[in-house]
Amino acid sequence: MKKTDTEQIRLANKKQIIHYLRVHGPIARVDLGQALKLSPATVTAITSELQQEARLIEHPATTEKTNTRGRPRVLIDLAPDAFHVLGLKLSINELKMHLGNHKGQVSDEMVIDLDTRALSEEGLFDAIASAVRRFNASVPAHKRPKALGIAVQGVVNGLNGEIIWSPALAVRKVPLKHELEQRIQLPVTIANDANCLTMAIRHQRRYQSLTDFAVIMLGYGIGMGMVINGELYLGHHGAAAEFGHSKYYPEGAQCLCGKRGCIEAYVGDYALYRDASALFPLSWDNSLHPTEDSMQVLVNKAESDSKELRDLFQRAGRVLGHGISNLIALLSLEKIIISGPGSRAYHLMEAGLMTNLEDSLVSDLIAETTIEHAAWDEDMTIKGIVVLALEAID
Amino acid sequence: MKKTDTEQIRLANKKQIIHYLRVHGPIARVDLGQALKLSPATVTAITSELQQEARLIEHPATTEKTNTRGRPRVLIDLAPDAFHVLGLKLSINELKMHLGNHKGQVSDEMVIDLDTRALSEEGLFDAIASAVRRFNASVPAHKRPKALGIAVQGVVNGLNGEIIWSPALAVRKVPLKHELEQRIQLPVTIANDANCLTMAIRHQRRYQSLTDFAVIMLGYGIGMGMVINGELYLGHHGAAAEFGHSKYYPEGAQCLCGKRGCIEAYVGDYALYRDASALFPLSWDNSLHPTEDSMQVLVNKAESDSKELRDLFQRAGRVLGHGISNLIALLSLEKIIISGPGSRAYHLMEAGLMTNLEDSLVSDLIAETTIEHAAWDEDMTIKGIVVLALEAID
Repeated sequence: MKKTDTEQIRLANKKQIIHYLRVHGPIARVDLGQALKLSPATVTAITSELQQEARLIEHPATTEKTNTRGRPRVLIDLAPDAFHVLGLKLSINELKMHLGNHKGQVSDEMVIDLDTRALSEEGLFDAIASAVRRFNASVPAHKRPKALGIAVQGVVNGLNGEIIWSPALAVRKVPLKHELEQRIQLPVTIANDANCLTMAIRHQRRYQSLTDFAVIMLGYGIGMGMVINGELYLGHHGAAAEFGHSKYYPEGAQCLCGKRGCIEAYVGDYALYRDASALFPLSWDNSLHPTEDSMQVLVNKAESDSKELRDLFQRAGRVLGHGISNLIALLSLEKIIISGPGSRAYHLMEAGLMTNLEDSLVSDLIAETTIEHAAWDEDMTIKGIVVLALEAID
Repeated sequence: MKKTDTEQIRLANKKQIIHYLRVHGPIARVDLGQALKLSPATVTAITSELQQEARLIEHPATTEKTNTRGRPRVLIDLAPDAFHVLGLKLSINELKMHLGNHKGQVSDEMVIDLDTRALSEEGLFDAIASAVRRFNASVPAHKRPKALGIAVQGVVNGLNGEIIWSPALAVRKVPLKHELEQRIQLPVTIANDANCLTMAIRHQRRYQSLTDFAVIMLGYGIGMGMVINGELYLGHHGAAAEFGHSKYYPEGAQCLCGKRGCIEAYVGDYALYRDASALFPLSWDNSLHPTEDSMQVLVNKAESDSKELRDLFQRAGRVLGHGISNLIALLSLEKIIISGPGSRAYHLMEAGLMTNLEDSLVSDLIAETTIEHAAWDEDMTIKGIVVLALEAID
């Protein structure tokens, strides 16, 4: 047997234990071993190693029940302050940073406003490097981040860390990871916001046992993250999974990507607002970038008096149902989770979605795939990118 | 470290070596180790084990160049007759069987005609069990198969071995693997024909290095097999990857699955023949089951004088391009291979396919994904099911 194989297994087991503690800790060693089907010897060896690295804390469980031998069980957990990472969210005209601790908990927000669409490539690298330096200067030395994760709206190559296209930027094909690592001397991880959301959801206890699922992120655009065989699937060219640019209708509605008929061109906030503005005089005149408030006005109006708007959201639901039927036919997934800021209108879309799914796909293929809505919380992108940055150095 | 882990790695390495020998043998041990990045010690240990099991042959390479030390290199290969498996193809009104040897080579055809659509569940189990017994009686004792693989047209759950739906059968949801294993006392593997084709292609040397690809099988229906991270992807519910029932057009053409607008309803042989019969008087009156000859007549007519038929095949190509753009957006694959009997008309579809792909998807997402046609040979389904049956007991 190869030595490297032994080493790889040890590392894989270690990563698995760290992941499980991050989600479920504090927990007794015996329960950890049972949950992960690891032998007591393996658990002891790896947790000792983590203790030597000062990454583990033990606390006797005074409130937990004692075990059958009558001794109080010692619960272990990741030491929250063993080290920290920096999660940065790049959005239109904003860099938002948070510190993430070893447990994946988020704190210390810093927001920097700047005209992101005016930045050259070099300007972007400099702006992020300088933001990281400002953040570093604002936290005590023991909290200085050891890695940086950047969440980007748009299309990202998660393998080589290149931003292919983002609505926040005028420049395209930006080798952000490579250039930034030279400038800030920290490991850099880049992911699109939908993959960040997927990682955040994967770290929620209720979704922990899923191995094959997709998370559709409704918002300005429509993104998706996909977990296959328990791992985030980035695709061979790193750009999976662009559900928003899979198709509803050949030669259909105009999409911001430049093509027509994409699902996003019917379900994205910009598409809903654009279509609503053809029905009503709307107050917000920049219809391509509707605010959260203007989107909420549409939802309220649909709920109170407008059948036209209810129909608009219903159709968006049908378009989602069409796309989801393709996903299920192709991938036979366990669960599809719908979230993101645009899911504010999920209750108006759900009936259309379910009806069209049943109209599109025979029940034998829908099988036991379930579809559910997960409440959106805007910090989930940050939580996800913090987890990705942690996993890059775990 | 867990003992089971060590054992798992040894088995995984062994399977990898068997797979590589099946595709590339005869080969020198040193080249095998380099190709699979396995240490000489691992290669020696596993090949010795295979020798003890009488599964390996050595032959000195008289024609090969000698190595730097001047000694002739010993080439190793799987012993072709170490054991055999039976590959059975279940089609409309036919059971076709072939013996597959340890190298995956196919021989000894036997064909049994029967009215498959008249069979009850029990009738199907009995018919296959009796066919297997007849086959067994026809080969010498040392060639009696140790496992059975069944290739089925239609939708199959590759995980539990259930036939969900097949055009060859009137019955649905048939627990074929479970029932047959009781009757014939052999391990049974069930796969749909597209997954068989995909396995056959994965065992061709020129495609050996691909890790993320899909094979679209054009024919009576439209199937697909998908390899993700180097493994055949069956999906969480075992029914991936039904590309033919992903959608082209909401409320579009009638599909045999019962729904409308599926890609198959435009590109499958039955759909092309149905649409052609609206344009011309066609000789074969059972338009739902066109023969290979009647399909070839359409191709010839398109090539020689019919612009209407050329347009029909072009549109089928555009529909394929639409579906492929969805595949690429969602999965960011390395390569998409098009084969199957329906690819007899690929030259008439290709321009429409490529044009619609470029019209549908921004070039940043198409990236380096390549699309190519692999010549169809009707034995590929049998080759694939033989490999799957072998891998189930390797």
